[in-house]
Amino acid sequence: MKPLVIAGKTFHSRLFTGTGKFSSNALMADAIAHSGSELVTVALKRVDLDTPHDDLLDHLNLPGVNLLPNTSGVRTAKEAVFAAQMAREALHTNWVKLEIHPDARYLMPDPVETLKATEELVKQGFVVMPYIHADPVLCKRLEEAGAAVVMPLGAPIGSNSGLITREFLRIIIEQSNIPVVVDAGIGRPSHAADAMEMGADAVLVNTAIAAAANPVAMAEAFKMAVESGRRAYEAGLPGISNKAHATSPLTAFLD
Amino acid sequence: MKPLVIAGKTFHSRLFTGTGKFSSNALMADAIAHSGSELVTVALKRVDLDTPHDDLLDHLNLPGVNLLPNTSGVRTAKEAVFAAQMAREALHTNWVKLEIHPDARYLMPDPVETLKATEELVKQGFVVMPYIHADPVLCKRLEEAGAAVVMPLGAPIGSNSGLITREFLRIIIEQSNIPVVVDAGIGRPSHAADAMEMGADAVLVNTAIAAAANPVAMAEAFKMAVESGRRAYEAGLPGISNKAHATSPLTAFLD
Amino acid sequence: MKPLVIAGKTFHSRLFTGTGKFSSNALMADAIAHSGSELVTVALKRVDLDTPHDDLLDHLNLPGVNLLPNTSGVRTAKEAVFAAQMAREALHTNWVKLEIHPDARYLMPDPVETLKATEELVKQGFVVMPYIHADPVLCKRLEEAGAAVVMPLGAPIGSNSGLITREFLRIIIEQSNIPVVVDAGIGRPSHAADAMEMGADAVLVNTAIAAAANPVAMAEAFKMAVESGRRAYEAGLPGISNKAHATSPLTAFLD
Amino acid sequence: MKPLVIAGKTFHSRLFTGTGKFSSNALMADAIAHSGSELVTVALKRVDLDTPHDDLLDHLNLPGVNLLPNTSGVRTAKEAVFAAQMAREALHTNWVKLEIHPDARYLMPDPVETLKATEELVKQGFVVMPYIHADPVLCKRLEEAGAAVVMPLGAPIGSNSGLITREFLRIIIEQSNIPVVVDAGIGRPSHAADAMEMGADAVLVNTAIAAAANPVAMAEAFKMAVESGRRAYEAGLPGISNKAHATSPLTAFLD
Repeated sequence: MKPLVIAGKTFHSRLFTGTGKFSSNALMADAIAHSGSELVTVALKRVDLDTPHDDLLDHLNLPGVNLLPNTSGVRTAKEAVFAAQMAREALHTNWVKLEIHPDARYLMPDPVETLKATEELVKQGFVVMPYIHADPVLCKRLEEAGAAVVMPLGAPIGSNSGLITREFLRIIIEQSNIPVVVDAGIGRPSHAADAMEMGADAVLVNTAIAAAANPVAMAEAFKMAVESGRRAYEAGLPGISNKAHATSPLTAFLD
Repeated sequence: MKPLVIAGKTFHSRLFTGTGKFSSNALMADAIAHSGSELVTVALKRVDLDTPHDDLLDHLNLPGVNLLPNTSGVRTAKEAVFAAQMAREALHTNWVKLEIHPDARYLMPDPVETLKATEELVKQGFVVMPYIHADPVLCKRLEEAGAAVVMPLGAPIGSNSGLITREFLRIIIEQSNIPVVVDAGIGRPSHAADAMEMGADAVLVNTAIAAAANPVAMAEAFKMAVESGRRAYEAGLPGISNKAHATSPLTAFLD
Repeated sequence: MKPLVIAGKTFHSRLFTGTGKFSSNALMADAIAHSGSELVTVALKRVDLDTPHDDLLDHLNLPGVNLLPNTSGVRTAKEAVFAAQMAREALHTNWVKLEIHPDARYLMPDPVETLKATEELVKQGFVVMPYIHADPVLCKRLEEAGAAVVMPLGAPIGSNSGLITREFLRIIIEQSNIPVVVDAGIGRPSHAADAMEMGADAVLVNTAIAAAANPVAMAEAFKMAVESGRRAYEAGLPGISNKAHATSPLTAFLD
Repeated sequence: MKPLVIAGKTFHSRLFTGTGKFSSNALMADAIAHSGSELVTVALKRVDLDTPHDDLLDHLNLPGVNLLPNTSGVRTAKEAVFAAQMAREALHTNWVKLEIHPDARYLMPDPVETLKATEELVKQGFVVMPYIHADPVLCKRLEEAGAAVVMPLGAPIGSNSGLITREFLRIIIEQSNIPVVVDAGIGRPSHAADAMEMGADAVLVNTAIAAAANPVAMAEAFKMAVESGRRAYEAGLPGISNKAHATSPLTAFLD
């Protein structure tokens, strides 16, 4: 399996995980270890910055695991930049997962504020990984703005619906010059394999592992699924042609 | 059927149509007449502005039909504003369908330039109808910017795939205070009925009518489908619950 | 719209309806009248055979409406034949909708008993309309056995899921020499239009009308949707190619 | 991972494979070895029964691999029984994969002849594994007839479409007392994982491996996907509820 490189750092696992919703920090650490994940998101708001030994961070002190602070909870570019700066100081990393979602009900990302924050954070030397709608043009603009990867959603967060944005992910993957990490909506290992088979560079999975009856076993299942999907992609998949391409001439916009 | 009001104008038909891809202007006029459509998009670039009697426009001089110039072909907000101004002068209307698609291959709309152009055109007194990705947050921002409607896509333009953005359209319809017009991807009357059943306020259909073996009969079929879907919506649909809502607590973003 | 002929009888409506689940017989009659349906299923078990003026039947005494007794509730071919004979005597019709479903939970039809009953009922002079799984080979065998139509299911009964058996319906429609009536799963007018666009000869709708907040308006919506879908089919649909055909050589079974 | 038992034989791999469509027998053997498969179908018609050392069979002489002759090419129960008898003699096994498909174009299985052949072959002491449509009632009847497993199709053979019969597979899995092996339509590892996550006991994959650019790597990918899906199933999947159940009361058949 070809390793994945983001901002000069090499990853041997293409499964990124999260730290929310586990029933205990010990269980979280155990599941992450079994997932093989080398990049783990953590919400700044969940870290106690005033304590020398925060329990969450102590549990994440695992060999090979890099922390990816996220800006969860912010509603504007300005708030996001501030959160990223705080995270850099607290966690000693210039990597940031950018999440800006003004709407508390569906937690959909804001395309305009996300682009604005990306531009600013790149200027400030951050490695920016923006979570966004599966919008092909926005992905290109984030790439131009210096984002390290794009993280389009597969389905509404928490829906476990799989890749309902499939046709758009396909376009994004085809057009992107930076890694594409599918985030949100991945509820089962088969969804993760599906994304990898399509040519996604990595996936981010949190709830589906954390909320499983047995998170450790589920972490292993996801690990295998991601490797399986990647291997299949590299082995050359026969079969399902790109239906979005097949049916349409697309030579000119309609009027 | 409840009439639809956009910018103070009342529409009795919820089927908007286009003028591209017909084999002749006469056939186009016949199909539009049978569709019952009262709002018809026309690409500014296809109108000969120097001719006193442009053939396309002459054929669109139908009772009850309003023209909706579109900015098809532009790549930036600036170009879009210029195109809208030209259209206003040439076609004597301050309505404009805003289409900004920098990528010639998939014709996906640009969220950032579209918002910027909307803000500017609203200031200049236009009735702005932006064509966009099915992005719930972007729709809210366009609403706040003064757009008259939002026109999210159902599927990639020309794909005839139906409402593959269904889960996002649902959220958009639920949250919007301005009419939602589903544009692009509607390839069959059932797709149009589907959108109306979900609570969309109108649909825009072009290729599926223009490229049919019998465009006039197809126009009638779409007319009936839109009325059927709207009637069903008003009659109260039992059945398929909103699956996006059902499966997830969505109380907090994950980390 | 081309009329539909079944066993020598001509139908101008391609929407068949049912009589179950309405809140009153008066409302049922009103909805059926507005649906334009000329063929209406009625469960033998719901008719009071000992009463000269059964209330249900009195309400179904509508101009142009033909009754189609069904064998709902039977579990074997033998029971089905008996039920059909009773229905013929009670309702003075040799038409019968054959439903054999041994499982009370999902009400899935039994392919073997249905074929056996069809063979016997055809011998006894019945016009047999069997409700079955969307199984292409079974459909051919029923045709060979003398069934007047085949009625494959679109989705599990009561699921309102639309045409989840789409790929199989496509094959059935392509191969059938007798009318194909899609039954079960049609929950919204768009589903009915969808079936007609694919080339189904008719659809049967019951719950979706009966359980609507406004059954009369919903009946009208379905009437329009069926006509719309049929018109589109006759007008020649561009677009979505038969994906089942496209991806596979299918020259030989695998081993 | 819980082992799978069929007719008293224990399998540690839940991935069954086939022997068709490989570019050479050597490549086939290599791919099967890497798949970990312990049960491999072989078409009787492809074996040269008159040769002491058939090349295909020689290559299948792998440690841990059991042969599963299939009746591919037969059109009736009678032909199937004869083919099974020949296979038993030639390959020294009483296991048989029953495939009866009268239609050469879509290779859909015949439900009635398959049930008839199963009854006869069980009487004759065969371990019968019938390939069938995803028809829940037929599956129960095959179980009652003594089939060792049921092998419902996920999609038309060769379509690589994944589990388009999903809702019916779910019912079959829920109701079956014998192992359920999903056959046909599995075109990518994610499809195999999907089936296992739903609770299928095994999957059969042939073309997707044989026709891959790199069949050995693809075999490994499928091996991992099947293990991943099974592990996830055993770990307890949160999330997607059974939609077929959710939307409908299903208390009584409609009329």
